Amino acid sequence: MDPSPGWIDEVYDGVRYGLAGRVIAETSSPYQRVTIIESERYGKGLLLDGCWMTAERQERHYHEPLVHPALCGAERIERVLVIGGGDGGTARECLRHSGVRQLDMVEIDGLVVELCREHLPSLGGGAWSDPRLRLSIDDGIAWVAAAESASYDVVIVDGSDPAGPAEGLFNRAFFEQCRRLLKPGGVFATQSESPEAFRSVHLDTVRLLRELFGHADPLYGWVPMYPSGWWSWTFAALDGPRYLQPDPARTAAVAAGCEIWSPRWQAGAFAAVPAGIERALAD
Amino acid sequence: MDPSPGWIDEVYDGVRYGLAGRVIAETSSPYQRVTIIESERYGKGLLLDGCWMTAERQERHYHEPLVHPALCGAERIERVLVIGGGDGGTARECLRHSGVRQLDMVEIDGLVVELCREHLPSLGGGAWSDPRLRLSIDDGIAWVAAAESASYDVVIVDGSDPAGPAEGLFNRAFFEQCRRLLKPGGVFATQSESPEAFRSVHLDTVRLLRELFGHADPLYGWVPMYPSGWWSWTFAALDGPRYLQPDPARTAAVAAGCEIWSPRWQAGAFAAVPAGIERALAD
Repeated sequence: MDPSPGWIDEVYDGVRYGLAGRVIAETSSPYQRVTIIESERYGKGLLLDGCWMTAERQERHYHEPLVHPALCGAERIERVLVIGGGDGGTARECLRHSGVRQLDMVEIDGLVVELCREHLPSLGGGAWSDPRLRLSIDDGIAWVAAAESASYDVVIVDGSDPAGPAEGLFNRAFFEQCRRLLKPGGVFATQSESPEAFRSVHLDTVRLLRELFGHADPLYGWVPMYPSGWWSWTFAALDGPRYLQPDPARTAAVAAGCEIWSPRWQAGAFAAVPAGIERALAD
Repeated sequence: MDPSPGWIDEVYDGVRYGLAGRVIAETSSPYQRVTIIESERYGKGLLLDGCWMTAERQERHYHEPLVHPALCGAERIERVLVIGGGDGGTARECLRHSGVRQLDMVEIDGLVVELCREHLPSLGGGAWSDPRLRLSIDDGIAWVAAAESASYDVVIVDGSDPAGPAEGLFNRAFFEQCRRLLKPGGVFATQSESPEAFRSVHLDTVRLLRELFGHADPLYGWVPMYPSGWWSWTFAALDGPRYLQPDPARTAAVAAGCEIWSPRWQAGAFAAVPAGIERALAD
């Protein structure tokens, strides 16, 4: 840990993305190295094993596209499950929907929650004290395997890259369990990596979900601090792509508070499949 | 000029984006410092005054979205004008359209053309020897002021950020001249900066074009090496937003050779206006 001001970088495949700032906390959990920084441009930020996860003034680029297509698209939203999401941003966006009665959040690394609550409290905001939130510090893979079938309206996977503790969040066995947990009319959502920097993982994730659900749709947006800045989230549902039609009442309740997401933005982001990716997915 | 391997970065507003590689040529023109690098990830690349412009294996993210909505949308495409674009990528994409009979390209800095032809020949490709290309090393602002009214089917502005030699490419007087040059059914296109890293310039550009043309539409995509990775291009036309409906025959001729652009991608990228930008533009 170097507390002097300078550059904090993530290096990936011959590219680096750095923020000017300083490290304000760094410690290792049994799972990973957790680093909190204070940046000039985006406020406080989080890295896991040296990879950018989130920052106070950039996190909406990631959380709004992951949450609102699912929460505005599912038939009901009373029971929501979030796997990962230890910074609290996904829970916060979910709980903006008043129809959510219970949000189970299963984060493997308690240290991430602890450091984010202390240093990045705006990420979780009111979620941490919302009585609807049930936080479990537990292995998400074991949790979904043990959970009751058809018990959630929405299942959201908010994990890091498929290496380290999040490796098991990108395979058939895990996605099959997630599907099993959905109630009729339920929607599944996962971050699905960069179509540029992690092209193979992205394509494999979309293909696997299409096989398991009969359909699945990637949505493309931007998270400047992630490799290539170009990111994706993929959605699937038990009864067809209902996430493509956001519910008007739920939309009206959350849209004014969004910086990125809107029904118009979402429709565009689902359609904006780059030509090379569309051809690869059609093969 | 440091020819040893290391990081070559662009620093902007507390953020840096760097490529591992080495500088292979660096010299100053009367207008700017021109740097050619060899990177591990994206092949050879170009910087002007230390800002990333393009690289061999990333340039399609920029050139396809700038060119094809205009070239597939204009009523006719016989005469095309490109202001800037010294690396040759915009000319190359334009000349893939067999309907183009004459492409006038006006680049202020002959050194950029010279170094790109030498070190990044794939950017211009066959354009440099295409008899339809008429290259002028000249000031684009003076050129458009002197050009005949209603003389071009498409006018494309492919300049760098609004500082240094490209500063005059983002103002009312220049855009008015560009509009004057269009034939009936003609389309105007310009890169319009990042809605995140250069939010004010982006908003001002869209607003100004809407005022001058009565309408204008930003299109949002990704250029990983530019500040924030999130980029925009804005289109306007004399007779309404005809660039929203790509001509099927022209589309069929170029789509298979595109990595990013397709009619589907374009429709999505025009719709994917982030909520905060949409609200700001409505004010």
